[in-house]
Amino acid sequence: MIQATFSNKIVVLEEGSVTIPKGYKAGGIHCGVKKKKLDLGFIVSEVPATAAGVYTTNIFQAAPLIVTQESIAKENKIQAILVNSGNANACTGEQGLLDAFEMQKSFAAELGIKDHLVAVTSTGVIGELLPMEKINTGIKQILQPEYEIEANFKQAILTTDLCTKQMAVQIKIDGKTVSIGGAAKGSGMIHPNMATMLGFVTTDANIAHEDLLFALKDVTNKTFNMITVDGDTSTNDMVLVMANGLAENEMLTKDHPDWNLFVDGLKIVCESLAKKIARDGEGATKLIEVQVNGADNLEAARAVGKSIISSNLVKTAIFGTDANWGRIVTAIGYSGVAVEPYALEVAIGPYPVFANGLPIPFDEAEVKEYLELDTIKIIVDLHQGESTVTAYGCDLTYDYIKINASYRT
Amino acid sequence: MIQATFSNKIVVLEEGSVTIPKGYKAGGIHCGVKKKKLDLGFIVSEVPATAAGVYTTNIFQAAPLIVTQESIAKENKIQAILVNSGNANACTGEQGLLDAFEMQKSFAAELGIKDHLVAVTSTGVIGELLPMEKINTGIKQILQPEYEIEANFKQAILTTDLCTKQMAVQIKIDGKTVSIGGAAKGSGMIHPNMATMLGFVTTDANIAHEDLLFALKDVTNKTFNMITVDGDTSTNDMVLVMANGLAENEMLTKDHPDWNLFVDGLKIVCESLAKKIARDGEGATKLIEVQVNGADNLEAARAVGKSIISSNLVKTAIFGTDANWGRIVTAIGYSGVAVEPYALEVAIGPYPVFANGLPIPFDEAEVKEYLELDTIKIIVDLHQGESTVTAYGCDLTYDYIKINASYRT
Repeated sequence: MIQATFSNKIVVLEEGSVTIPKGYKAGGIHCGVKKKKLDLGFIVSEVPATAAGVYTTNIFQAAPLIVTQESIAKENKIQAILVNSGNANACTGEQGLLDAFEMQKSFAAELGIKDHLVAVTSTGVIGELLPMEKINTGIKQILQPEYEIEANFKQAILTTDLCTKQMAVQIKIDGKTVSIGGAAKGSGMIHPNMATMLGFVTTDANIAHEDLLFALKDVTNKTFNMITVDGDTSTNDMVLVMANGLAENEMLTKDHPDWNLFVDGLKIVCESLAKKIARDGEGATKLIEVQVNGADNLEAARAVGKSIISSNLVKTAIFGTDANWGRIVTAIGYSGVAVEPYALEVAIGPYPVFANGLPIPFDEAEVKEYLELDTIKIIVDLHQGESTVTAYGCDLTYDYIKINASYRT
Repeated sequence: MIQATFSNKIVVLEEGSVTIPKGYKAGGIHCGVKKKKLDLGFIVSEVPATAAGVYTTNIFQAAPLIVTQESIAKENKIQAILVNSGNANACTGEQGLLDAFEMQKSFAAELGIKDHLVAVTSTGVIGELLPMEKINTGIKQILQPEYEIEANFKQAILTTDLCTKQMAVQIKIDGKTVSIGGAAKGSGMIHPNMATMLGFVTTDANIAHEDLLFALKDVTNKTFNMITVDGDTSTNDMVLVMANGLAENEMLTKDHPDWNLFVDGLKIVCESLAKKIARDGEGATKLIEVQVNGADNLEAARAVGKSIISSNLVKTAIFGTDANWGRIVTAIGYSGVAVEPYALEVAIGPYPVFANGLPIPFDEAEVKEYLELDTIKIIVDLHQGESTVTAYGCDLTYDYIKINASYRT
């Protein structure tokens, strides 16, 4: 495990995950939804945990999202999360809802807890019914000690992802060590507002429900909702946070002196997961970070950032290591924001390429070399105000086409 | 020339173009902006023609668009259009404006007409100054009889297009034959609201300026603004109509009994050009037509249509002949329209695939065979109202990546 001190107040555990906080276990199994890979995973807390979630904005919310939202609403707590990959249980009508409830009930029975304390979620192909016999068999076995391996959990939630995504931080609150850990999956259908991604965050912080939800929404808007792989917002995405209180800090609320420290810690975890999702976008060879400065307001900054990061032409140019700043300027121009053309400045990494309405001459070979790196920054300054955001995405490649021209069949 | 009667009132000339109407000539030349291909084209009317234009919504409007709009505003007339390809004269600052004015002035001098009667436009690479010496040399030669070839015009306006796009219709108004002809170019950066496309329409109709503009806007919204190749709206796009009145019909206004016939004719020309642009989208192997029925209003119908036609996942699925209706439903779900999931019906060509919130079983092999055709229809019924639109686009392929990962360099 790589350990690095992020600041004097936050310890970053790059390879930490959802079992770093006290009182959580996680694991996964192959139950047969997929041909060979792990496809059923769980997180369980020793005690019921305060819970908060954010969910896809897609009108066609998948069955498990409906079940999980209803369940959390009952007492704002969950004690366990059960995830299957390989089948999204989306567009599956009433039977899909019954199946999601059955998943929940079966796992609750194994754990000996109330049904509504189990959150369920699914990811994979849309429109096919879950193979419930396989899933039920998996649920009956999954709590056996040989499957209680945190690495199995991270594997079991993946679809076309090439790598697992995890991160943890530790902070001190009221003299107690509080940990926040997370795991996530991407990697296609990713667009701001909860695309096909799942994020799971655990913490042992003692925190009030409404404040946890507030922090999650705030952080999600700055992290998960700023990533784009292909602009498609999926039916199944959600981020869930569990906070079981075992760190025994004084109850965290917005008035607690360490509130901002907790939110910063949560943001570091979510931002890291978001960047890992973008970098592992389907077919991606590079992470693209678009920093927008000097916008009139956050909404304008986001619109400009998303317009650039979503442009197929910008994404293919970066894949081709072509410093095609004209496509960046074009994407800014159709973002819907009233940009002042002569105030705009654009840089590709350390190289300014556009100002005063005109291109700035640059050394093509030098910028091409920069574009061969695996993380590319585009910096835009609108010179209109003080708002700033960063959007994350990836290049558009032959492999994206390959993966998506043959996914379902 | 293939001639077909579209209805008993409209004669369709599939291979007709801008010189079908009386009093127009067109041509093109290689002047050296591009390495080898034709790159400078013109249309000239015998007499000044009533003019109307629609222009890109991109904030970074290219210099020639500014010059052309200003010029048309002077007396709502133009007599000539000069187009170069290979260089967009966009993001070129004050020098770009001076160059666009010089192009206009030079061609006006050759024709012996007032400067503002010449519309200028450019398409190609962004951010490089026009090679004015080459362009001026071209302008001096272009009116020589050997270059006055309508086929040259259609070639000279192309960039990455693989084929020319043209269409004409003829109608009878007041006993006179009125013709409408058009030519256009695509083929990347194409998205509703005037993407990198140029459209030129000529007619010998006698028509009032404000009515011509009204008709052009109305028709553009239903045709050119309904096509998407990659969602990028360019800096240079415009559609210009010239109406020189040589058909000698009574002045057409909205009150004329044949007003609708004229608008229908204009729509057939623009729709045909728009579909040809979509079919020739960069790297495309198929035209995709998305018909949205039963929307509450036109805006909702457009939003749903554009959401589907812009989805990289839908586009790659169709390239891969994969009947992935889940991606279509997903794109409808994030369109921003309050769709009723259980009312929605989706069909791929003649095959219903989704209704009552559930997939409809279909014969995979049969639908796969349908998806191998070169025109694919997706039909969506929201069952919420009476509004209907059709959006046009193309599949997303390896060749799109190939073309765009190396366009500028």
